[in-house]
Amino acid sequence: MPEFQDVADGLGMPLAEAMSTQRAVRRLRTDPVDDETLLAVIELALKAPTGSNGQGWEFVAVRDGDVKHQLARLNRQAYSVYRRFASTRARGDLKAARMLAAVQWQADHFENSPVIVVACLRGRPGIFGFGRAAFYASIYPAVQNLLLAARGLGLGATLTTLPLWNRTLVRRALGLPSSVTPCAVIPLGWPVRGGYGPTTRKPVGEVVHLDHYGNRAFEQRVSGISTES
Amino acid sequence: MPEFQDVADGLGMPLAEAMSTQRAVRRLRTDPVDDETLLAVIELALKAPTGSNGQGWEFVAVRDGDVKHQLARLNRQAYSVYRRFASTRARGDLKAARMLAAVQWQADHFENSPVIVVACLRGRPGIFGFGRAAFYASIYPAVQNLLLAARGLGLGATLTTLPLWNRTLVRRALGLPSSVTPCAVIPLGWPVRGGYGPTTRKPVGEVVHLDHYGNRAFEQRVSGISTES
Repeated sequence: MPEFQDVADGLGMPLAEAMSTQRAVRRLRTDPVDDETLLAVIELALKAPTGSNGQGWEFVAVRDGDVKHQLARLNRQAYSVYRRFASTRARGDLKAARMLAAVQWQADHFENSPVIVVACLRGRPGIFGFGRAAFYASIYPAVQNLLLAARGLGLGATLTTLPLWNRTLVRRALGLPSSVTPCAVIPLGWPVRGGYGPTTRKPVGEVVHLDHYGNRAFEQRVSGISTES
Repeated sequence: MPEFQDVADGLGMPLAEAMSTQRAVRRLRTDPVDDETLLAVIELALKAPTGSNGQGWEFVAVRDGDVKHQLARLNRQAYSVYRRFASTRARGDLKAARMLAAVQWQADHFENSPVIVVACLRGRPGIFGFGRAAFYASIYPAVQNLLLAARGLGLGATLTTLPLWNRTLVRRALGLPSSVTPCAVIPLGWPVRGGYGPTTRKPVGEVVHLDHYGNRAFEQRVSGISTES
């Protein structure tokens, strides 16, 4: 299995290429992820912005089998509900069916992820919409940096929130005080197969509105990036 | 002022360099940001993951003076409250004082930003903590991609949530239906001065816990990235 020095060059990947080939990589080998690789992706997570530069994050990296088992159980409980909705949607939709198969694989093998990172934020989301948005805006940018860094290194990763359906049990599993909120669960490991690759998205003109919602002024336009590729 | 073809090479910036030199750039020139640049940063935002690949985002790009004025007023109203807390904290803390001065500058010049992007998500955050986390986890990763793409291009940007303190008025200003939630407000423009540069963060070992919260097993460790620099 690769160690950090074998893959470190990947952090020099061109920015747009890293973004354009980032995808959820759920099928992970059980081989270990070394400390340097783990610390590198978290260190780059810390470069993300936080409200008032508060940097109130805490990252619990779980390698212990018992703790992983507890997270896996929470994930499976939420997944069993999620599957009912998702499988209806996946009927006749090949892409959705493929994704569901990967989510199923992940649910079945969750505790075998070599390391599961739980990204947490000190404090509580607050009761007003505004406070909640400000709160989560101080942790998910860091999570995205972590995922992009993983993509650069070729390390498989997924952003999941399913195991968080019961935060009390997540806090108990990780020994988190009630003043620390778990926000994202990210299984990390080397991909079973290639893993990363280009993704497809709606054209940018469909989701951009000029000045007022509904004014799709760029509907016929492609960005300079689209033109290049 | 640069146009997209002058700065497009910046999207090839090495991933780790882009992350390590991303910072809030609040002092913006009033010169226009061309369509291609605007669409490029939003197109890269769309590469981010969303729950169940739902891609429920909508981006309102505001150039209209009247709409910018309404956002600026909402920002100033929240800022006047924020300043009371922040100025206490900034006393005797040079870095915090510098940031507050920049936030003040931004509040004073908000409507002069050449374009203000409001990142929205279809749906509502839900009433349970789990649902809220899953909701916001489907928009802030895209916002972080947008900020990193802006950094690559040398385009100044900040993630703010202050104008969202009153979502009803934000919806009214943008013509958003109640089924679409505004989540982040990002003024974009070419920096008054250089803008981007290295940031300082806590050492990674201080925020990583192994298996259980409080077990700072990597406290004496630096990542491979730290060793390189």
